[in-house]
Amino acid sequence: MQAILFDVFGTVVDWRSSLIAQFQALSAELGRELPAETLTDQWRGHYAPSMDQVRSGALPWTVLDDLHRASLVALLAQHGISLDDAMVDRITRFWHRLEPWPDTVDGLRRLQERFVIGTLTNGNLALMVDVKRHAGLPWDVLFCADLFQHYKPDPQVYLGACRLLGLPPQKVMLCAAHNYDLHAARALGLRTAFVPRPKEYGPGQRKDLAAEADWDVVADDLVDLDRKLRDAASA
Amino acid sequence: MQAILFDVFGTVVDWRSSLIAQFQALSAELGRELPAETLTDQWRGHYAPSMDQVRSGALPWTVLDDLHRASLVALLAQHGISLDDAMVDRITRFWHRLEPWPDTVDGLRRLQERFVIGTLTNGNLALMVDVKRHAGLPWDVLFCADLFQHYKPDPQVYLGACRLLGLPPQKVMLCAAHNYDLHAARALGLRTAFVPRPKEYGPGQRKDLAAEADWDVVADDLVDLDRKLRDAASA
Repeated sequence: MQAILFDVFGTVVDWRSSLIAQFQALSAELGRELPAETLTDQWRGHYAPSMDQVRSGALPWTVLDDLHRASLVALLAQHGISLDDAMVDRITRFWHRLEPWPDTVDGLRRLQERFVIGTLTNGNLALMVDVKRHAGLPWDVLFCADLFQHYKPDPQVYLGACRLLGLPPQKVMLCAAHNYDLHAARALGLRTAFVPRPKEYGPGQRKDLAAEADWDVVADDLVDLDRKLRDAASA
Repeated sequence: MQAILFDVFGTVVDWRSSLIAQFQALSAELGRELPAETLTDQWRGHYAPSMDQVRSGALPWTVLDDLHRASLVALLAQHGISLDDAMVDRITRFWHRLEPWPDTVDGLRRLQERFVIGTLTNGNLALMVDVKRHAGLPWDVLFCADLFQHYKPDPQVYLGACRLLGLPPQKVMLCAAHNYDLHAARALGLRTAFVPRPKEYGPGQRKDLAAEADWDVVADDLVDLDRKLRDAASA
């Protein structure tokens, strides 16, 4: 194996806590109570359906920033919250300021000693550059949906990244906290690593609490992934 | 300005010394004298003509690694040097192991404090990932010709990078040691920084010794570029 690509939202960064904190800070700044947790969870609820509209062809190619903005506008209307365009733009960019999980940066640095590390994300590149800089993620390379104009789990994303790396899928591992993503990767020949993030969706999370298949590696977090890959290499 | 993109070969890394050193090390390893300087200079001589064949449509899209390999094969035949395929592959990858100029890493780190920094290179992504890791370059993002299937100075490369960054060209600067590259960037609205690298082509270099237009910034090296941009911001 030569490269490990990572899902980002949920696997590498804690989007939910990061968004809630930013909504709460904005509430304080505006002197106006915004329902931070509800807005965050409902906003994320639009995520998969909005990408499915692109994947099905109902919408032309649209980057995630623009899907986020459109779903935010709908959500604010639903809650009767009126904000001007500049504020809607600013809130849309909450997704550019996400915090890493506690193990993320250390784990990535260790893995980077032996492997090329990069993103394989449905986020657009402009978003992912900001997340990289904000969270201090030491990526070698960013693979983002807008390079391929496809969203995961479309095969073009996984195979496009392998092609650009000049590697056969067997030399590339996807690391994700989501079983659906790993299923798609495995079907195309990539290796797979599952890292559960049981608090990604908050206290009531019910999906992706455990591996749903015999993934090549199942690790507690990214530091543990590095440890397990080193153990396997020296075994 | 929000992002600075860098030409890589010559501007950021000293490809000529790096290749010569690798040819010399290989000569010692093989116990067989290879004309290191001649091979390096003649190989680079194929660079622009080989890309022009792609740019003109005479060749279909071909990544730089493959252009390098084809010109190496021709060059070795010309010199009557017989090497097996694995060795030709290995020498082709000399381009993946290039050393930075002395100011490069320090300059990039300083610039990165205030700007998104990335490549804008005719190298392919797999090559550029290796150069990044070998030379310790702290890129935020890699823009490579194979993302766009065009070579500089085709406008698709410059504008494609701006589009993916979500920035208008006026918010993006190209830094290069080559006037032709800056001319193309300026024509599309990007800002321009010239950094001369008078030893890029060795002791007999005659082109790109000085700025040929009133580029937005002319700096001695990347540390000086950072200094001049900070001075301009505080002026």
